[in-house]
Amino acid sequence: MNSSCTPPSDGTSCADADGLSALYCGLSRLVIGPHHHDADAARAVSLLLVSVVALSAIALRFVDKDWRVWRDVRLAMEGAFDRVPDISDLVRLPPLDDDDDGDDGRKEKTRRVAAYAGPSPPLIDPADPTTIRCFSPSTLERLGTVPNLTAEQVADLALRSRNAQASWRGTTFPQRRRVLRTLQRYVVAHVDEICRLCALDSGKTQVDALLGEILTTCEKARTLLHHGETWLEDSARDVNPMMTHKRAYVRYSPLGVLGIIAPWNYPFHNMMNHVLSGIFSGNGVVTKCSEHTAWSSVYFHSVCRAALEANGHDPELVQLCTGMADAGRALVACPHVDKIFFTGSPDVGRHVMAGAAPHLKPVVLELGGKDAMVFCEDVKLSDVIPWAMRGCFQNSGQNCIGVERLFVYESIAKDFLEAMAGRVSSMRQACPLSDDRVDCGAMVMDRQCDLIQALVDDAVVKGAKVHCGGKRNASVGGQFYMPTLLSGVTPDMRIWKEEVFGPIMCVVTVPGDSDETCVQMVNDCPFGLGSSVYSASPSRALAIGSQFNTGMFTANDFGVNYLIQSLPFGGVKESGFGRFSGPEGLRACCLERSIVVDRIPGVKTSIPSAIDYPMNTKQGMGFGKGLIKLFYGDNLWTKVQGIVDLIKHG
Amino acid sequence: MNSSCTPPSDGTSCADADGLSALYCGLSRLVIGPHHHDADAARAVSLLLVSVVALSAIALRFVDKDWRVWRDVRLAMEGAFDRVPDISDLVRLPPLDDDDDGDDGRKEKTRRVAAYAGPSPPLIDPADPTTIRCFSPSTLERLGTVPNLTAEQVADLALRSRNAQASWRGTTFPQRRRVLRTLQRYVVAHVDEICRLCALDSGKTQVDALLGEILTTCEKARTLLHHGETWLEDSARDVNPMMTHKRAYVRYSPLGVLGIIAPWNYPFHNMMNHVLSGIFSGNGVVTKCSEHTAWSSVYFHSVCRAALEANGHDPELVQLCTGMADAGRALVACPHVDKIFFTGSPDVGRHVMAGAAPHLKPVVLELGGKDAMVFCEDVKLSDVIPWAMRGCFQNSGQNCIGVERLFVYESIAKDFLEAMAGRVSSMRQACPLSDDRVDCGAMVMDRQCDLIQALVDDAVVKGAKVHCGGKRNASVGGQFYMPTLLSGVTPDMRIWKEEVFGPIMCVVTVPGDSDETCVQMVNDCPFGLGSSVYSASPSRALAIGSQFNTGMFTANDFGVNYLIQSLPFGGVKESGFGRFSGPEGLRACCLERSIVVDRIPGVKTSIPSAIDYPMNTKQGMGFGKGLIKLFYGDNLWTKVQGIVDLIKHG
Repeated sequence: MNSSCTPPSDGTSCADADGLSALYCGLSRLVIGPHHHDADAARAVSLLLVSVVALSAIALRFVDKDWRVWRDVRLAMEGAFDRVPDISDLVRLPPLDDDDDGDDGRKEKTRRVAAYAGPSPPLIDPADPTTIRCFSPSTLERLGTVPNLTAEQVADLALRSRNAQASWRGTTFPQRRRVLRTLQRYVVAHVDEICRLCALDSGKTQVDALLGEILTTCEKARTLLHHGETWLEDSARDVNPMMTHKRAYVRYSPLGVLGIIAPWNYPFHNMMNHVLSGIFSGNGVVTKCSEHTAWSSVYFHSVCRAALEANGHDPELVQLCTGMADAGRALVACPHVDKIFFTGSPDVGRHVMAGAAPHLKPVVLELGGKDAMVFCEDVKLSDVIPWAMRGCFQNSGQNCIGVERLFVYESIAKDFLEAMAGRVSSMRQACPLSDDRVDCGAMVMDRQCDLIQALVDDAVVKGAKVHCGGKRNASVGGQFYMPTLLSGVTPDMRIWKEEVFGPIMCVVTVPGDSDETCVQMVNDCPFGLGSSVYSASPSRALAIGSQFNTGMFTANDFGVNYLIQSLPFGGVKESGFGRFSGPEGLRACCLERSIVVDRIPGVKTSIPSAIDYPMNTKQGMGFGKGLIKLFYGDNLWTKVQGIVDLIKHG
Repeated sequence: MNSSCTPPSDGTSCADADGLSALYCGLSRLVIGPHHHDADAARAVSLLLVSVVALSAIALRFVDKDWRVWRDVRLAMEGAFDRVPDISDLVRLPPLDDDDDGDDGRKEKTRRVAAYAGPSPPLIDPADPTTIRCFSPSTLERLGTVPNLTAEQVADLALRSRNAQASWRGTTFPQRRRVLRTLQRYVVAHVDEICRLCALDSGKTQVDALLGEILTTCEKARTLLHHGETWLEDSARDVNPMMTHKRAYVRYSPLGVLGIIAPWNYPFHNMMNHVLSGIFSGNGVVTKCSEHTAWSSVYFHSVCRAALEANGHDPELVQLCTGMADAGRALVACPHVDKIFFTGSPDVGRHVMAGAAPHLKPVVLELGGKDAMVFCEDVKLSDVIPWAMRGCFQNSGQNCIGVERLFVYESIAKDFLEAMAGRVSSMRQACPLSDDRVDCGAMVMDRQCDLIQALVDDAVVKGAKVHCGGKRNASVGGQFYMPTLLSGVTPDMRIWKEEVFGPIMCVVTVPGDSDETCVQMVNDCPFGLGSSVYSASPSRALAIGSQFNTGMFTANDFGVNYLIQSLPFGGVKESGFGRFSGPEGLRACCLERSIVVDRIPGVKTSIPSAIDYPMNTKQGMGFGKGLIKLFYGDNLWTKVQGIVDLIKHG
């Protein structure tokens, strides 16, 4: 209460009040009406109001101490008022009409093939090793060709990306968001086309494409638009008591060019996933797509180029590398590539890591899993059956976090299997573009059908029971394996430990409904990617899941981990190491730089003479011991001794 | 203002007031004295007070929203009232008396050797390959022997650590802090002994040991004690708009057993560094110490065991692996080791990464550097010369963040060299335990002297000038290289790019005092670990340093990065990848697990029928597109369309 703030002496009216007094009066009127009759009341109420406003502001500052509200408002304004270009006209999508059979000369077979007629021809025609031939897995029709790049061509792509990155790294976050929003706008407007392209090139159903390719990509973009800048802000660090005059922080600088080796299971998302985080963090990106889905990748890549170009940036920043294993090897060894993000099998992961070793190149390895889904005996079967179906058959099981082992507690196992058998056997397979009811698409690789068959046969020989499926679906043209329900799976079977990556529901019974046994069985596995437990008791589900040696866990849900893109994604053991998504994944695209500067102008550290050269051991040791005792002694007496030492030797 | 709060009608006294009114009166008295004459004033002032208190509490809750104040109080209480055991009696230190020459039969030569008499005998006597012979680099006296472990023995150590870790992972943070504080107490009370052991085994001066081994270790322990628990707390994550009923977080679980491959330059700290963070994060630790400093490592290891044992834990948790390269190879390949932290040369780093690849074992590689220290033309020479001395000669240059290239701006280069020449040539070398004035210790490895000589000779042939030093110091017994001042170093010389790891000050002149040229010269280097810039203008120093491609940067200081243990430590390019120290380093000892649970009791996700099996493509696509348009459409119209789609197909 400042003495210069004199309240009006007249308690009945504010008419003669001036300055601050008038403010008091005004505020009093607002609160206790115009007929207040007492100056003290006026003053007190006003003060109350002012205090409330001031303290609220202070509180708000700390509630929102990182200015999140301001960020959200700013981002909303950016989205509302800064319209991004429409790049539809810049991207030439291939013709996708079902009935357009053969008249562009691309197709060798009609789309509707009566029955399986053996595997597609090899991707490389020995007569023309510079070209990869692309086939549709569901019809075996020929889609077109893409170049089979040499090591020199790969290095050239990386160099072009590096050159473009030199200016891209200087762009602002609003500029980068603009490119992401341009991509997002295109994707939202072309859901049908992208889904049909994915279906054509990889044999998946369009709904699988929508959920696994589009939804994930859109959520990735949204998360980066919303959180990306915050995640890459300087991260302030506490300094120690000796260094209070210093300011320490970590800065996230772009690494340079990221080399992506992407698998074929999600041709659109596996490219976009790393393109989005790579360019958002200021890097160039070179993606080696799978040779099995290179045809659609060419178009997806052209979308990325168009989004850069339409916003005035060099489209060379994002490169697509089409080729066979040699092209991947060249990318790993390329001196213009600063880090490798590999998604694929453990065996190829080993080669990637070994290939990166001579170049001391960091690698992130995402090597698939053998994910467990657990149904405790207290679940309601009708609630969990749709999750089992989605977990096992999403993308025909070609899903790194696909459910490969379904642990069902003993007392519900019989009912579960009865309910499932009908469900699984009624699933329909057909060319995803030719039919309105397709539940389960084709296998991207023909040889995957043989691998699955070997695993199923091995299990059957060792006592597992096939309730339905269990073989190729030869009635449909293309590379289809029948949705299969397998029960009685035990640890001695290959299918217990080897990744199936196909439409097989492997049911394991948990004896005695024992949580402990369940945990042991789940952890008896070389992989450790995702996992989920369903129980009527959320705390029980969490208690069980907390004991799994996996990179991810979800209670009473499936796949949601990946839809929450602020969480890191990755595994342990044969599932690899390193993370993408979340702040961890975004910062993994960056060089984390520790920086220390002086906090107080004019205050600098100088070396105490006791420990400067020329050195007197007695004096130096005395001074140093003083420091140690003062700062690290565990009692007051040691600290006092430290001060004495410092005075004596300093 | 609640209508039920009736103020006393009598404005002059509170005697007849009751309940809330009495509270009002009391508060009014406190503020405006006992003689307040108005009830309104009383009520208003009281309300003001209550509001201030309430809002302050709210504000404080948010200022300290992570309860840091509470944490600090709790930790202070823990330190003050929970005395940890003294383990002095449990650890048998070897005899360290200087004059104790030979009478324990350990020593083959007296400590004061007149002149260099050739390298020490090989560490392995072919007649007894199971034993490593340990020598002191400064005197070449024999210190003792340690076992040269086989691969089977290494695997056995790791298994013992894994078994101990099974119960250790369940310990609480206060229990782990107790072990760290026990270690800390021992270290603070035995600074002299540890420094002398380090000096004896590695040839460094005692002051170098105090600053590089003790101070760093104590600060590491202090940082973990203070921040460690906070850094390993669950990290909450934002969920997306579709998932608002979910709670998502990252949990940091111990990885299991960490394999450490430590170099010889800091025998005490390089072991303790990873033991502290490893056990604090709940892991077991197996350290392969260098064969060159294995003798002292045995004693340091016994300190760790004693600290565990004295607090009732299994000392097998922390293991020491003594051996040659084969033992390191065995550790990398060992199935009981979950991650490798390697510190050493790039060449061995390549082998470590290649060796880990078949096992898909994650590695952190810290491979040394070629750190630049830059003196702009605006510095005061007398201020920066002590930093140049410390940067180049600390630990005889055997320092991963040692200054290997000193960039001096052209206009001060001549004065700088004149001032330095006298300083460097006056540095004294002697056995660190026998003399009170020793500035520069011995080289741990005899062959390092030959390597340094080759680099210096190459530089001289190509035009560099040796101002002083430039050769072995043959006047002292042991492996000494003379402190050397070399100027005129240019990019064509081997010494520009190859790590010296010795007491050589390499001065590079920055032509035209150009910041831009300086940045180019600094970045023209295969390494990228630390860096520092000195300038009268802190903003200029930061502007220059921000352009360096290094993992760390300090303005107007040296080495402080490592003393601020809340910062991650590590580099880029040939300096390796991955980080230790800071939250990054502590979390690198953990499995980062993404976890999703339901937030609202009873609210669970179920799969919408439109995208459940059996699938109707039209309905599923319609519903999915509705979701995409609603959540990711960039304008209101698209979002409305999305809602229509959802209603139509849902």
